[in-house]
Amino acid sequence: MMGPGDSGSACSLWRTDETLARRRAALIELLKERDLDGCLLSSDHARGYFSGFLAESHDTVPAAVLLVGKDRTMLLTSANNVEWAGGEAPGVEVVPWQRPWWSTLGDLLNRMGWTTMGFQGDHLSVAAHAGVIGRLDGDRTFSDLGDLPDRLWAVKDESEIQTLQRASMITDRAFMEATASLAAGTTERELALRLDRAMLDQGASGPGFPTIVASGPNAARPHHAPTHRAIRVGEPVIIDMGARFDGYTADLTRTVWVGEPDQRLASVYAVVAGANAVAQAATRAGLSGRDLDGLARRFIADAGYGDAFIHGLGHGVGLEIHEAPGVGRQSTDTLLAGHALTIEPGVYLPNWGGVRIEDMAIVTDDGFRRLSEAPK
Amino acid sequence: MMGPGDSGSACSLWRTDETLARRRAALIELLKERDLDGCLLSSDHARGYFSGFLAESHDTVPAAVLLVGKDRTMLLTSANNVEWAGGEAPGVEVVPWQRPWWSTLGDLLNRMGWTTMGFQGDHLSVAAHAGVIGRLDGDRTFSDLGDLPDRLWAVKDESEIQTLQRASMITDRAFMEATASLAAGTTERELALRLDRAMLDQGASGPGFPTIVASGPNAARPHHAPTHRAIRVGEPVIIDMGARFDGYTADLTRTVWVGEPDQRLASVYAVVAGANAVAQAATRAGLSGRDLDGLARRFIADAGYGDAFIHGLGHGVGLEIHEAPGVGRQSTDTLLAGHALTIEPGVYLPNWGGVRIEDMAIVTDDGFRRLSEAPK
Repeated sequence: MMGPGDSGSACSLWRTDETLARRRAALIELLKERDLDGCLLSSDHARGYFSGFLAESHDTVPAAVLLVGKDRTMLLTSANNVEWAGGEAPGVEVVPWQRPWWSTLGDLLNRMGWTTMGFQGDHLSVAAHAGVIGRLDGDRTFSDLGDLPDRLWAVKDESEIQTLQRASMITDRAFMEATASLAAGTTERELALRLDRAMLDQGASGPGFPTIVASGPNAARPHHAPTHRAIRVGEPVIIDMGARFDGYTADLTRTVWVGEPDQRLASVYAVVAGANAVAQAATRAGLSGRDLDGLARRFIADAGYGDAFIHGLGHGVGLEIHEAPGVGRQSTDTLLAGHALTIEPGVYLPNWGGVRIEDMAIVTDDGFRRLSEAPK
Repeated sequence: MMGPGDSGSACSLWRTDETLARRRAALIELLKERDLDGCLLSSDHARGYFSGFLAESHDTVPAAVLLVGKDRTMLLTSANNVEWAGGEAPGVEVVPWQRPWWSTLGDLLNRMGWTTMGFQGDHLSVAAHAGVIGRLDGDRTFSDLGDLPDRLWAVKDESEIQTLQRASMITDRAFMEATASLAAGTTERELALRLDRAMLDQGASGPGFPTIVASGPNAARPHHAPTHRAIRVGEPVIIDMGARFDGYTADLTRTVWVGEPDQRLASVYAVVAGANAVAQAATRAGLSGRDLDGLARRFIADAGYGDAFIHGLGHGVGLEIHEAPGVGRQSTDTLLAGHALTIEPGVYLPNWGGVRIEDMAIVTDDGFRRLSEAPK
């Protein structure tokens, strides 16, 4: 294959010159605060967010990288991608690179007139970094931006919220369509395929992450890849899925069963559903991610399952499957209006199974705007 | 979502204790040649190849990393993944990490008794590298392995060839099923969805890379994401697709049309098909990747389209979509028996379209074992 990417949407809500220019202006403000002349954005998410060019990387060489500075924005990519990139990132100068890609990058950085530059330490390999550094003129500094760019996409604007709403609606419909006639004997893999096909049918560019179907004892593992195990009557089946649409990913978990739930499933389900509801009722701007996690955790502990809630309550979501803010015991983030969150309490009992119920929603000043509408 | 991965196959041909132990023994031999006591494998491909644990990373934090040394192999992953990893990598000690993941890694490296260690410079971020280095006891060296591990999976054994054959068969069947009743008016996106669904139906764990459908003038771009453009009679439609099966990815390109091809398409098609056939006839162990590229390039140039063949002839494929050996003008690789290659000449004419025809095959001592069987 030749190195493709996300599909150009016919009707993107956020890929407008105005939105992209506003995003870059906000980034430049943050750079100035840190006394940086410009920065290299080498993650797919950051490059797409600030340029509109969504090509996905499937290699150690990124599909493209973006340079953003006070007076200039440049997109570097392979010669084969230049025309495509120009079409998706209209306000941006597109430059083809020679191999290795970081040699062109180093030469260009020398010519940009920047002396203090930042890069994404989480998204630049040691090898590429060494290549660029070896190419830079002596008096330039190149430092790790940390979470500086990530902070910008944690808070969503209305065009992003509507995009996430669309991704979530696709996910809800696909879930309902694929589980409507679920029968015992269906394997985890078959159900996962059905869910993936339904997301494509509903308009997703693809699953935003590999769909989880975990049945019976497999549901005791929060992380599980679908197997050839056949689903049985009465046992829990955890489905964790999310459609990707125009660069944004939804996230939904439901726990379902065939026939009547066994007694333990009925009681565990009530506990997890309660924890989900308690957390949603408490969510609002100003609350800390740790305190929100604590509310759900206390509810589950009071019901006697404290040791069985073995992961964080949720996470930010949008461009990335996991992004800021954190919603867990170790989180240091405070919720802001416009944060997109998941709320996903779970109880896992080895050798039996588990229950997880996850909704995605947007934090508001006085509460929470739930996007997930799949029935529970 | 909770961080899933590739599906555990019910009948993996290569995930046996014996094969995995042999792979690790070969790696340890290479480490000894380089005077290294052990190494960190942080890419999904390397960790899966040497451990059998195929979980996919969808984050800056890898799903798992592997440590391989003379007398010990350890798999590090999050606590949530430990049980799953233990099931997929039975011969390997699995250790849960604390956050940040590299802190546990650093502490463990100090305890392994290794003094000279390697890492994958292309697959370790600057931030994680700095974290590990900051944690290591003073007298240990940690150096870039370069392409040392990658060399091992470039040459495929029989279990891998059969896995690739299965991935290729799934791809061929999906191509035939989805294009059987292709009609004018179908959009690129619709056709791409049909191809993706057909791959799932045929048994793929998913597409190995985003499927390309490029019609009419869009086919002049080697890299193209499917759009809402409707396919017209007589124009070229390039389809580039590949199913993933048990960790290995196939790669197939066909150029098709609805109705009768226009005259230019008929003549360009003949040239590209000829170049493909010439290259396949010449392929055998001992030939250089550059010379193989040159044969196809000369054929196309002699037909008058030299400037329109704007990418390399092919690439190695298997664990990764692009891996060793290189088959292009800048390649320094020599073909070896067991290399899995793509042969994909193309001609691209701006404002008109293009033709690319790609087969996947295994290099043998005296030729070439073609895996792709989709009709041309």
